[in-house]
Amino acid sequence: MKDFFIADAAKFDNESVTSYFVLSSLQVREKKQGGQFLALMLADKTGTMEARMWDEFADSLASCAEGCYVKVQGQISKYQGKYQITLSKMRFAAESEIDAGDYQPSTRYDVDEMWAELRGYVSAFANEDLKRLVFAFLDDEEIGGAYRVAPAAKSLHHAWLGGLLEHVLTLVRVCRATVPFYPEVDGELLVTGAILHDIGKIKELAWKSSFSYTLEGQMIGHISIAQGMLREKLIGLEPFPAKLRVLVEHMILSHHGKYEFGSPKLPMTPEAILLSALDDLEAKMQNMRAEFAKELANGKSGSGMTEWVRSMDRPLLNSKAFLADE
Amino acid sequence: MKDFFIADAAKFDNESVTSYFVLSSLQVREKKQGGQFLALMLADKTGTMEARMWDEFADSLASCAEGCYVKVQGQISKYQGKYQITLSKMRFAAESEIDAGDYQPSTRYDVDEMWAELRGYVSAFANEDLKRLVFAFLDDEEIGGAYRVAPAAKSLHHAWLGGLLEHVLTLVRVCRATVPFYPEVDGELLVTGAILHDIGKIKELAWKSSFSYTLEGQMIGHISIAQGMLREKLIGLEPFPAKLRVLVEHMILSHHGKYEFGSPKLPMTPEAILLSALDDLEAKMQNMRAEFAKELANGKSGSGMTEWVRSMDRPLLNSKAFLADE
Amino acid sequence: MKDFFIADAAKFDNESVTSYFVLSSLQVREKKQGGQFLALMLADKTGTMEARMWDEFADSLASCAEGCYVKVQGQISKYQGKYQITLSKMRFAAESEIDAGDYQPSTRYDVDEMWAELRGYVSAFANEDLKRLVFAFLDDEEIGGAYRVAPAAKSLHHAWLGGLLEHVLTLVRVCRATVPFYPEVDGELLVTGAILHDIGKIKELAWKSSFSYTLEGQMIGHISIAQGMLREKLIGLEPFPAKLRVLVEHMILSHHGKYEFGSPKLPMTPEAILLSALDDLEAKMQNMRAEFAKELANGKSGSGMTEWVRSMDRPLLNSKAFLADE
Amino acid sequence: MKDFFIADAAKFDNESVTSYFVLSSLQVREKKQGGQFLALMLADKTGTMEARMWDEFADSLASCAEGCYVKVQGQISKYQGKYQITLSKMRFAAESEIDAGDYQPSTRYDVDEMWAELRGYVSAFANEDLKRLVFAFLDDEEIGGAYRVAPAAKSLHHAWLGGLLEHVLTLVRVCRATVPFYPEVDGELLVTGAILHDIGKIKELAWKSSFSYTLEGQMIGHISIAQGMLREKLIGLEPFPAKLRVLVEHMILSHHGKYEFGSPKLPMTPEAILLSALDDLEAKMQNMRAEFAKELANGKSGSGMTEWVRSMDRPLLNSKAFLADE
Amino acid sequence: MKDFFIADAAKFDNESVTSYFVLSSLQVREKKQGGQFLALMLADKTGTMEARMWDEFADSLASCAEGCYVKVQGQISKYQGKYQITLSKMRFAAESEIDAGDYQPSTRYDVDEMWAELRGYVSAFANEDLKRLVFAFLDDEEIGGAYRVAPAAKSLHHAWLGGLLEHVLTLVRVCRATVPFYPEVDGELLVTGAILHDIGKIKELAWKSSFSYTLEGQMIGHISIAQGMLREKLIGLEPFPAKLRVLVEHMILSHHGKYEFGSPKLPMTPEAILLSALDDLEAKMQNMRAEFAKELANGKSGSGMTEWVRSMDRPLLNSKAFLADE
Amino acid sequence: MKDFFIADAAKFDNESVTSYFVLSSLQVREKKQGGQFLALMLADKTGTMEARMWDEFADSLASCAEGCYVKVQGQISKYQGKYQITLSKMRFAAESEIDAGDYQPSTRYDVDEMWAELRGYVSAFANEDLKRLVFAFLDDEEIGGAYRVAPAAKSLHHAWLGGLLEHVLTLVRVCRATVPFYPEVDGELLVTGAILHDIGKIKELAWKSSFSYTLEGQMIGHISIAQGMLREKLIGLEPFPAKLRVLVEHMILSHHGKYEFGSPKLPMTPEAILLSALDDLEAKMQNMRAEFAKELANGKSGSGMTEWVRSMDRPLLNSKAFLADE
Repeated sequence: MKDFFIADAAKFDNESVTSYFVLSSLQVREKKQGGQFLALMLADKTGTMEARMWDEFADSLASCAEGCYVKVQGQISKYQGKYQITLSKMRFAAESEIDAGDYQPSTRYDVDEMWAELRGYVSAFANEDLKRLVFAFLDDEEIGGAYRVAPAAKSLHHAWLGGLLEHVLTLVRVCRATVPFYPEVDGELLVTGAILHDIGKIKELAWKSSFSYTLEGQMIGHISIAQGMLREKLIGLEPFPAKLRVLVEHMILSHHGKYEFGSPKLPMTPEAILLSALDDLEAKMQNMRAEFAKELANGKSGSGMTEWVRSMDRPLLNSKAFLADE
Repeated sequence: MKDFFIADAAKFDNESVTSYFVLSSLQVREKKQGGQFLALMLADKTGTMEARMWDEFADSLASCAEGCYVKVQGQISKYQGKYQITLSKMRFAAESEIDAGDYQPSTRYDVDEMWAELRGYVSAFANEDLKRLVFAFLDDEEIGGAYRVAPAAKSLHHAWLGGLLEHVLTLVRVCRATVPFYPEVDGELLVTGAILHDIGKIKELAWKSSFSYTLEGQMIGHISIAQGMLREKLIGLEPFPAKLRVLVEHMILSHHGKYEFGSPKLPMTPEAILLSALDDLEAKMQNMRAEFAKELANGKSGSGMTEWVRSMDRPLLNSKAFLADE
Repeated sequence: MKDFFIADAAKFDNESVTSYFVLSSLQVREKKQGGQFLALMLADKTGTMEARMWDEFADSLASCAEGCYVKVQGQISKYQGKYQITLSKMRFAAESEIDAGDYQPSTRYDVDEMWAELRGYVSAFANEDLKRLVFAFLDDEEIGGAYRVAPAAKSLHHAWLGGLLEHVLTLVRVCRATVPFYPEVDGELLVTGAILHDIGKIKELAWKSSFSYTLEGQMIGHISIAQGMLREKLIGLEPFPAKLRVLVEHMILSHHGKYEFGSPKLPMTPEAILLSALDDLEAKMQNMRAEFAKELANGKSGSGMTEWVRSMDRPLLNSKAFLADE
Repeated sequence: MKDFFIADAAKFDNESVTSYFVLSSLQVREKKQGGQFLALMLADKTGTMEARMWDEFADSLASCAEGCYVKVQGQISKYQGKYQITLSKMRFAAESEIDAGDYQPSTRYDVDEMWAELRGYVSAFANEDLKRLVFAFLDDEEIGGAYRVAPAAKSLHHAWLGGLLEHVLTLVRVCRATVPFYPEVDGELLVTGAILHDIGKIKELAWKSSFSYTLEGQMIGHISIAQGMLREKLIGLEPFPAKLRVLVEHMILSHHGKYEFGSPKLPMTPEAILLSALDDLEAKMQNMRAEFAKELANGKSGSGMTEWVRSMDRPLLNSKAFLADE
Repeated sequence: MKDFFIADAAKFDNESVTSYFVLSSLQVREKKQGGQFLALMLADKTGTMEARMWDEFADSLASCAEGCYVKVQGQISKYQGKYQITLSKMRFAAESEIDAGDYQPSTRYDVDEMWAELRGYVSAFANEDLKRLVFAFLDDEEIGGAYRVAPAAKSLHHAWLGGLLEHVLTLVRVCRATVPFYPEVDGELLVTGAILHDIGKIKELAWKSSFSYTLEGQMIGHISIAQGMLREKLIGLEPFPAKLRVLVEHMILSHHGKYEFGSPKLPMTPEAILLSALDDLEAKMQNMRAEFAKELANGKSGSGMTEWVRSMDRPLLNSKAFLADE
Repeated sequence: MKDFFIADAAKFDNESVTSYFVLSSLQVREKKQGGQFLALMLADKTGTMEARMWDEFADSLASCAEGCYVKVQGQISKYQGKYQITLSKMRFAAESEIDAGDYQPSTRYDVDEMWAELRGYVSAFANEDLKRLVFAFLDDEEIGGAYRVAPAAKSLHHAWLGGLLEHVLTLVRVCRATVPFYPEVDGELLVTGAILHDIGKIKELAWKSSFSYTLEGQMIGHISIAQGMLREKLIGLEPFPAKLRVLVEHMILSHHGKYEFGSPKLPMTPEAILLSALDDLEAKMQNMRAEFAKELANGKSGSGMTEWVRSMDRPLLNSKAFLADE
């Protein structure tokens, strides 16, 4: 359990604290007066803080490496307007000492509730084949476990623990709200696509102490990983209707909507077209939300144009805040 | 009133009929045995039919031109497996004799009901400025009248009388269904955008006897026509909040979503992004519906891949028909 | 067995022949003097020929459909400078009566020799895992059987029976000739990629009576089909080194070299980069060869610029013929 | 009135000065020995200079913000090779104390002369409708006033006070010189387009203390702003020939020449094509001129290749200087 | 000398004529009643006309081929609304019998006058090196001779005899009119570029009996051909200033303005930028002129939008005709 | 001769050295205690090192400039973890004192051996015209001399002395290995293209003390420089077969394979297509090799994904190292 979070440094000014962190960088530097010291960066889910260790750091240096968890003892103080910590002790911390949720940002929503809502939609399926297909994934201990905690991205939209589930659930809700207006769409097939389209992300991304791509993620990508998982899972579900298999596989492969975004096929069915459009919309709206939050975090009023948003190649405007601003 | 429609030719084989048509093409040709005859193409909303006029066509030729309405008398017969009509009389027909709805395809839905539903959404607006802005358009006799009959396109999606209203109404419904999941979006502003975004089409398109672009449509385009109409209409509504004006104008200008589709600005607000995405989706789904219908009209089963769809650069599959096919 | 081929029509002018064909189109038309007749197009691997059946075709019409094989009896004659055939009999022909090789163009090379050469390269692999992986495909009765006859494309390069094997074998040879100059490349891994990269084409293409895409080919594509086949095949080969699996999978996914050509990943390893470049080269050289042949077939000398080649967006020049031309 | 300009710092080394500046940045920092100080950046049209205020800055801090004008008293000195100023006093300065021309770069030409030349061309118009249209803009106090001072861009070509007028005048001159060679072009219509095409920039840009985009500029853009201004202005000029209105509107909308540059329409008339080409040329030549000047300002000889010019994606060469260089 | 032109057929209805033509196509066809006849297409600079030769054509067939000149005797008559000619005689015609100007469209202007004007500009050059360089081309008998008759294109802008000279002369005039506004530009260098930029077209194009690309034109292109001609010509002019050589070479290489238009370099000097922009403008204005003429030739009023112009990806409007139309 | 290389600094810690370097940057800075000193950067082919000169540097400053060679005497010491040198003497060094190979990275292979191998291939040509053409370049003292030392690029692939020859030789070898599989290819023509395609680089690049583009390189480019050199060289070889000239010229012009890479023509012959593909492959493989080396140089294991490689728009994986890693 972690008692001290970086965001609370001001409350501990000039006090001594003991806590756990991710050691995000570590350098040995020369003191001006001769000798060496450690220049460190510590992180938890609330931010990052510089640290210095001036003496007797040989053991610390031997046991701790960038990217691992550490337990430290030190004194908080302010330097050039920012808080930092001068360490007297630092040691490697085992994962058993750690609650990973303290070190990565995570969803604001209750994972169990989200999971139950998602399973509820599937339980109500009339199509038994789609139902057993989706549950084969959700009830798979390894897959289901990862699905509940995975982020949806390394950065950009939904880049937090539980982000994948949160993204999928919103998408499923929007799909269900939109289906009544498009009679060509098979609603259960669509929801199946929404739940499985990003399942490859649980192997594309790693989120232990920081978010990153796995080697398999870079070489194969979540679209093809998902297709591979589907093929493997289907072997245990045979006999499974070949037509349903093709339609589900097609939704997975085409959901990025364009070749240049890594989809090897363009959406060709009503479900694939709708899924791809709403998935793209969800990502854009979530990006926008993040940009609006960033403006506030940077001390802006939030009612003017944002900075240039590179991923969307334009600035954005929070219209509600703009209208509310006197 | 029109008693005979081209689609009913089989019922009148070898009979004489009298009816009105659009004269879609007219050629004077040489008879093999010497002398001339008229080779004509007649059209109404149910299809097209070849016609021949062998004798005494001087008066007809003097009064009738391609693209006008004509009243004809003639005999139906079958030639090389297709019905055609041999005319004994043909004369120019005034628009007063004509119900334009007989000559252009038109919406399957009740225009009055659609119009009432649309007005109902606006009546319920809490924002009085947006309410009087939208009604300034809908209650404008000329604009409102055109809005109720205009097609939404020259070809492709919603290319029929009432198509604009039908397109807008579906879009408004989908917008309203989607808004609850995106708290950043101002629902009334979004619906305002949905109702006004294509208003320029009533001047971009002409639909008297066939669908075509006006010169203003080609030179200015419906996006900028709409912006011009907005600026003109606002003069009578002053004082009108400048911020609302900018936000509505921005939705109109950006709704095509990309520069290469003729939008001079990319969507930058939550409402503009949502409107642009759902408008694009609506057009794609409607295109798809039309392609599926075309397959059936071409005598295919409808459960296989369609022909290559040029506007979407891919073939399509009607997944429901595919699954239902034994 | 087929005694008469379309290319030999001139030798049978005004004679009666009996033979098998693919019925590539069938229409019922009206005779000018009343009544109906059949207008047909017959095909075999040497070309196409028009046919007419003027009388007593009711049974023929009932049993024969476009795309099936037929047995016909008729008289050859010349009409407007082209040979056609007037049929007295036509009936459906079972596949058992047919040697498919008579109806589709096929490779000039001996399939057994090519197959043996390909297997020989694999037999010599030092890497036992790659060896058993490749043989798991080649020795699979269904896959191996299809591999030996499949074309490599619907049209363009290697669009003939055995074309896939011919394409792969040339590619393997060029890979092996090039490897010595690039020490970063693992030769056996590269050859594995060359043999498996297009394996999905055996399910993407259909080649029974004409070359076409399967529905799975259009919806999934040969790249992802191949990846799916690999995943399924690997289940029976476990334990299989995970690293090798990722490298092989990556070569398959990236071999088109660009997103816009349907590869969901760009080549990132020495083997993937080399394979993708040489595969593209092979296709271009084979296209060029086909264009040069087409010029000769069209009665040109072959030593000047070809017509515009759409697939390459340029005309071509057979430099050897150009130099040899006096 | 401003007595001291930043470019003259060397002449005042170790002297005390009193003058006005734009306060372009302001930070409160910690002194090493404890306590705080102000780190400031001051600007005028000749450059920028760092400033420090070590003591008694509470009142200054309360009244002055980034972007406002300030009056300061301080001592010039050199630090690390650059001049800076140590302030004893700083207070907010009202616009009434300021001549904005001292703080922004401005045109080298006489605005009144340019204005008179431009009006002279319009006075000579034979087409009364175009004449009263253009004068309706030029004689509008608010529009005309802004037109005389606005820059033509935030950065790049003509980014200085009076830059818009200077750009337009050169463009009008080149248009007039070119017209004789293109008989299809209506010269007065062309000059009308040249004068009005960028009129929206007076609302797209703000130039009070620094050049920036307005919110309306970012959301609507100068092309559509201009079209809106035209529509509003025409209401007071009715009856105005509809054909002329479409042609002028079309020139405004299409003058960027390509969709990806924000034009919703491509140029389709002789005047629109000529205007768009010459406007693009003018901008390129002016950019080039600025790049050549920058080379000299950076201490280069000016006779070699410039640095890479990002906006043109190439380096440039001043050919006259290159030839003159021995 | 040619007495009869195709455009005059109506005046010779049912009369016999004797004249020369280009034989643009020749086919041997089967008569319905047995035997063969010749189906021919004849052309001169005023148009094309179908011809038939029913009997005794063996000698004609032996001596005449597509693309050669022929002398024919025959009877004019009207068939299906078009004039054609029934030939009694046809023989090969030598070039000595022919005035090539009768068979290809050619410039409306006097070639000698244009040539003199062009030479006059060069004679006035102050820069002796540029003067002798340009004259080395113009006074080269082979080059100068070809320059005076070459078309500027195979189709599109200036596709007629003398078109190259006409295009260059207009370009030179516009360059000279524009130079005064751009002091960075060396006017004589610019005019040198204007005169030499397209000189490669005299080897890229062939224009004997019809306009086509040479093999060298397709393989090397007029840009690189021109550069090669410059290098060869400079050998005889040594010593020639290296800097001038680079600047002239650069104008030639960059004058298409973009890589995708076949320029291996982008324009980097004031002269190259101006030349490239005005050359592009000249081509667009000339294309537009041709499209306006085509509308009139197709019997349209010329005051409405033209058909879609593929080479410019838009329709066009003749604004002067549009305004003049009541 | 150079006794001390920068990479050997550790062996000379706290010792005095005397050696030659390239002076890559030079700045005069203010000492904190008043007065000035020189802050310098020295370079040789093994790396770069900071230098300081605290006193009596007036003569050094007067004679030495950035980019020239210098001879220095100084003391090696470590500062903030890096070696630097404190100079007591520095003077300009003439090129006669210098072996350029000490200052630029150069090929690992023996230039004489490479040269002999290349010449050997040409000596064996059966085609005498191609043989004398290639030798006209190789035996030209100026061209041949530069060919043996030129780098193949400013940065990226083969950016070292001898890199051009090394690149060409590998390309020739791969060409020769590939030719047997493509009977349409004339092997000697292909090798001629491989040897001459980049010959323009000897004038496009400068490599005296650092690698850079010449002005001619930027304005004309190595493709067109090579074409110019070919035209000039051919004048001395006449009579030379025109067809061979066109084919060689075409290979040079088209070898970049795409317009956007600066080729004015696309490859249209078997030799041009093969050359362009293998040249591109060679460059990619060499880039990859360099990226793998960079990973090791940066202290990474080399068995994981590399950093993002901008020139290839992807990361890379050294598959052999990846497989070998336990």
